[in-house]
Amino acid sequence: MDLTLTRDGLQAIDALLIATIDSEVELLNEASRHIISGGGKHLRPHVALLSYLAAGGEDLSEAVSMAAAIEMVHTATLVHDDINDHALLRRGRPSVHARWGRTFALLTGDYMFAKVYELMAPYGSEYNIIMARACSELVEGETLQAVAAKAGTIDRETYKRIVALKTASLFEGAARMGALLGGGDERTVEALAEYAYNLGIAFQMVDDILDVVGDPTALGKPVGADLAQGRGAFAPPSNGTTILSLQGGDDVGATAAAAVAVAEATDEADPIARMMAKLRTSGAIEAARLQALEMIDRARAALDDVPPSAARDELLSLTDDVLDRDH
Amino acid sequence: MDLTLTRDGLQAIDALLIATIDSEVELLNEASRHIISGGGKHLRPHVALLSYLAAGGEDLSEAVSMAAAIEMVHTATLVHDDINDHALLRRGRPSVHARWGRTFALLTGDYMFAKVYELMAPYGSEYNIIMARACSELVEGETLQAVAAKAGTIDRETYKRIVALKTASLFEGAARMGALLGGGDERTVEALAEYAYNLGIAFQMVDDILDVVGDPTALGKPVGADLAQGRGAFAPPSNGTTILSLQGGDDVGATAAAAVAVAEATDEADPIARMMAKLRTSGAIEAARLQALEMIDRARAALDDVPPSAARDELLSLTDDVLDRDH
Repeated sequence: MDLTLTRDGLQAIDALLIATIDSEVELLNEASRHIISGGGKHLRPHVALLSYLAAGGEDLSEAVSMAAAIEMVHTATLVHDDINDHALLRRGRPSVHARWGRTFALLTGDYMFAKVYELMAPYGSEYNIIMARACSELVEGETLQAVAAKAGTIDRETYKRIVALKTASLFEGAARMGALLGGGDERTVEALAEYAYNLGIAFQMVDDILDVVGDPTALGKPVGADLAQGRGAFAPPSNGTTILSLQGGDDVGATAAAAVAVAEATDEADPIARMMAKLRTSGAIEAARLQALEMIDRARAALDDVPPSAARDELLSLTDDVLDRDH
Repeated sequence: MDLTLTRDGLQAIDALLIATIDSEVELLNEASRHIISGGGKHLRPHVALLSYLAAGGEDLSEAVSMAAAIEMVHTATLVHDDINDHALLRRGRPSVHARWGRTFALLTGDYMFAKVYELMAPYGSEYNIIMARACSELVEGETLQAVAAKAGTIDRETYKRIVALKTASLFEGAARMGALLGGGDERTVEALAEYAYNLGIAFQMVDDILDVVGDPTALGKPVGADLAQGRGAFAPPSNGTTILSLQGGDDVGATAAAAVAVAEATDEADPIARMMAKLRTSGAIEAARLQALEMIDRARAALDDVPPSAARDELLSLTDDVLDRDH
């Protein structure tokens, strides 16, 4: 496999996404293209294309529409998430919500959701069931997160469930559909699905870490948003400790409650900024990175069941990208 | 065809809708079932089932999942519309928005949207393309309506376009899919699609009329909502007349501007109530009913190209139901 192949595939996906947005209502075109052309990482469609190739697929164009559908789902949910989170920035630009207002952001997300059907139409029933499952799990994860944030309490099991549903599920669906389209045998399909699931979990954990230690410019959005909304890996769980600092027992890492207490003694005025400052020096971030690394190790191990190929190598190198990313 | 067949079909659709809502997140089940079991008219799935039978289909169970998907789309958009409209009542019960709040209403609508894929998975590519088109047109109609309402101005062409997109498109899609599944020839499929499109336009016009003259108890929601939000058939268009009163020329019916002026001289304090009172006596309602009747006549005429059957008779009698409905 030539590496340029996936690059070509990703370009084809971008072109297809833009071409699929062809409303007679100009506002929907503008708002949809605003978010689509905002420079997303395209990690999910990348996983879809590589899984297709790693499973033995030889004509990448077979997988382009499905991979574009995966990216479309992801993008639609970003638009809706930004409404619920009152987020003003996304990918370094105003969110659809900030620029067009709530009503049009809701409708833009719905429009993009409808377009997912169109992109998935060429595929058979099996694929539409995988896609439907990934979509509904994604929404379930977001809902579970909102329920937990509202209750102001979360336990480690719930956090894991949220991450599995809201993030890992679409990664897994992307790999599974790619592998099936590529004609992989059952072992290869399951291995690629397992790889992507764990990659997705690690991706989300790194996301939560970047919310505390990331650079807002590189991220294209403010940090501290998850903390402020009582969610993510460092949300105060019901037992008063932060979730990701719990590896190895309750005495590892600082508790969020303790972080707040200590932070209150510092000269930082904003309580979120104080909590972030404390988390950065508490060992909680390192503990969280260790857990993300554990998921990355599982993802790498899953690739052992995939026949060697350049695509498999590229899937392997994606694990480094996810771990080392700054945005 | 036995009439009980469609009744059985509609019951099967309800059972399938409820069974499809099977989230591990209890809130999504509760909120989705709250709106699904609120006693909708099921007009769209009814059209789907009857079109299947009228086109020669013999096993109604083939069409149940598709018809349930049509109802699921419609219900999902109601949940999202109620967010944008700040509507507190729907089908005589609190809206999902009113009961669970905006965030969960948005997620509930998204969840139901995802479930549409699952219900459509058994069907082929052609059907998914029809469904995708109906869904995106529906959202386009809602968007066009919101754009017009925000601008505070609307012309007759735009109103017609809004109604065609937001309402008639899903009716047409339901009939087209039903007719194709039933094995209808091209002439029958197009006739049933034409029937449903016009029925949908008439349905929406009657909806707009009921917003002015309807009984809130029968409707299960307040009246005057469209007027208050500057939309619907009686929204003030750019030329100062109401849209549906324009049949036959600008001198037919009262203008909304004139209605407001006259109403201001009455003793009704609420400007919307005053405008409604004036519309009721201005002749605008009768003009609007005439236009709805014209669409119903087109729907009936389209049935001439459908082979005679009990299902065709039932489609014919649906046109009376739409015209005479009080909710």
